[in-house]
Amino acid sequence: MKKIMNDPSNVLDEMLKGFTYAYEHLLQRIDGTGVIYRHFVDKGKVALVSGGGSGHEPSHAGFVGQGMLSAAVCGEIFTSPTPDQIFEAIKKADQGAGVLLIVKNYSGDVMNFEMAQELAEMEGIQIKTLIIDDDIAVEDSTYTAGKRGVAGTIFVHKILGAAAATGLSIEEIKKIGDRLVPHIKTIGVAISPATVPEVGKPGFLLGEDEMEYGVGIHGEPGYRREKIKTSNEIAKELVTQLKAACQWEKGQHYAVLVNGLGATPLMEQYIFMNDVQNLLKEEGLIVDFKKVGSFMTSIDMEGISLTLLKLVDDEWNHYLQFPVVTPAWG
Amino acid sequence: MKKIMNDPSNVLDEMLKGFTYAYEHLLQRIDGTGVIYRHFVDKGKVALVSGGGSGHEPSHAGFVGQGMLSAAVCGEIFTSPTPDQIFEAIKKADQGAGVLLIVKNYSGDVMNFEMAQELAEMEGIQIKTLIIDDDIAVEDSTYTAGKRGVAGTIFVHKILGAAAATGLSIEEIKKIGDRLVPHIKTIGVAISPATVPEVGKPGFLLGEDEMEYGVGIHGEPGYRREKIKTSNEIAKELVTQLKAACQWEKGQHYAVLVNGLGATPLMEQYIFMNDVQNLLKEEGLIVDFKKVGSFMTSIDMEGISLTLLKLVDDEWNHYLQFPVVTPAWG
Repeated sequence: MKKIMNDPSNVLDEMLKGFTYAYEHLLQRIDGTGVIYRHFVDKGKVALVSGGGSGHEPSHAGFVGQGMLSAAVCGEIFTSPTPDQIFEAIKKADQGAGVLLIVKNYSGDVMNFEMAQELAEMEGIQIKTLIIDDDIAVEDSTYTAGKRGVAGTIFVHKILGAAAATGLSIEEIKKIGDRLVPHIKTIGVAISPATVPEVGKPGFLLGEDEMEYGVGIHGEPGYRREKIKTSNEIAKELVTQLKAACQWEKGQHYAVLVNGLGATPLMEQYIFMNDVQNLLKEEGLIVDFKKVGSFMTSIDMEGISLTLLKLVDDEWNHYLQFPVVTPAWG
Repeated sequence: MKKIMNDPSNVLDEMLKGFTYAYEHLLQRIDGTGVIYRHFVDKGKVALVSGGGSGHEPSHAGFVGQGMLSAAVCGEIFTSPTPDQIFEAIKKADQGAGVLLIVKNYSGDVMNFEMAQELAEMEGIQIKTLIIDDDIAVEDSTYTAGKRGVAGTIFVHKILGAAAATGLSIEEIKKIGDRLVPHIKTIGVAISPATVPEVGKPGFLLGEDEMEYGVGIHGEPGYRREKIKTSNEIAKELVTQLKAACQWEKGQHYAVLVNGLGATPLMEQYIFMNDVQNLLKEEGLIVDFKKVGSFMTSIDMEGISLTLLKLVDDEWNHYLQFPVVTPAWG
């Protein structure tokens, strides 16, 4: 394992220290915890809280800021944050109008956020929870019953963050979320695995010329392993899978996210974006919003994911373009 | 070589297609060239143009936009752009108040930008050129007489971009640049090399447990190779080198840039930022501006660079914080 780091067992704390230092004008950390919260307080408006295991930087703390998350809870690497820390985040985030929890569908996350919700409700804070399960690669997985939550989660942060900023109630925001989530579909591919610092070796192995379709962001198994293909062939496979999942028709409007998985250079992400562009054009889709970059990573995994969001509501596109001030949305 | 790409000889064109597609709301490409220019025209104000070989994404095209570059010229991978393309960029960028060229100190770039300057002057466009040589690692290098230009270049884009946006004349902007550049110092370290797609193998080799101090962004040799050290030890070495170069004193104000070299996860960049923070605090420096991310990369090199800019003028910090709309500054 070759990494720029110190003690492998202290990665989370050091990383959060460096992160909060870099962005101290926007956010801070509750000392001794993995809770990052924004300085900006939007009194009387709904607050959004997300989180999960770390190792997916810049997710989720990179989306804390004006117009997106009020707080993020960072667990240990690939490990759900504890209910008490999520509870702390909720209390810190609450601006008096309730807190919406945005949770990727992993059994540990779902359970711990649920326990935190109960603790918060006992304190009289109004809470709703939205589970994200955008990964269409496999049905159940190593840490998940049902589909996994992956990169599409950042579209939820962005759209509901804007909805909250405009002053909608928690019921209204939850309703948008319930409508939105089924329209977000993601699928990824890995060409090399991730190494958890404390483990010291890759979570799975791929041959020199192998790649795997459908790998999860913790290295969970995908659906097919084969010789590495060209960007265009990979794009074709992913778009074909997404087409089946979205059941799109010509002329429909979409948002597209090309997401690097951690060690994938922008050069490759741009090339892949170009292949996706051509395929979606052939399909007759109208792409109103695009984003490319490493937003939901798997430590140092090399690979890419493709997210499509069917814009069945015009407002979602407005919300995607609503101005924000966060470390990572840009 | 494991990369998400198609034809290794067509990387530049496909990459620029994907990039301009992703950011078509901000910029466009002169067809058939490596010239990217912004939609936004600030009539009567000075325009900034930069560029160089590709492989450093998001540099430089990612800094094209309101408040930074008017245009960027993207050469083939690690290859200087041609004078005719630079000339095209200058003509497209000119807003009637002259064009400042920002050039990293590589012999090919310097020569080709100089030839383009002559072509533009013959057409009556007022041109000035600023050479960036922030890399303190070595004196001369493979493609350079004198010091190399590296990540500190983005501070120049940002500060002079803001100066241009406020309406300063080309003489005034050049004067700021001349004062600014000697105060920018960078040094980097690689823990694994970059692979140019058309070459198909790494530009240099490092053992399983080796790293190299002072490597250039095209894999040019550094000044010492040794067993890989901890983030804290690497930070100490780089800060010590920078201290000698900057000759800083307690209480002086600085801007800091921690820059990933392409395949370095944010996790490691944040950890390194934390170590840098602690060292600069010990030194008694006041850090007014910090930035962390992969801004000046070397394709898929793993490693990091550290840039320090002595803020001898308050205005530089204001300019760093001046709002921009570009793909990559954030």
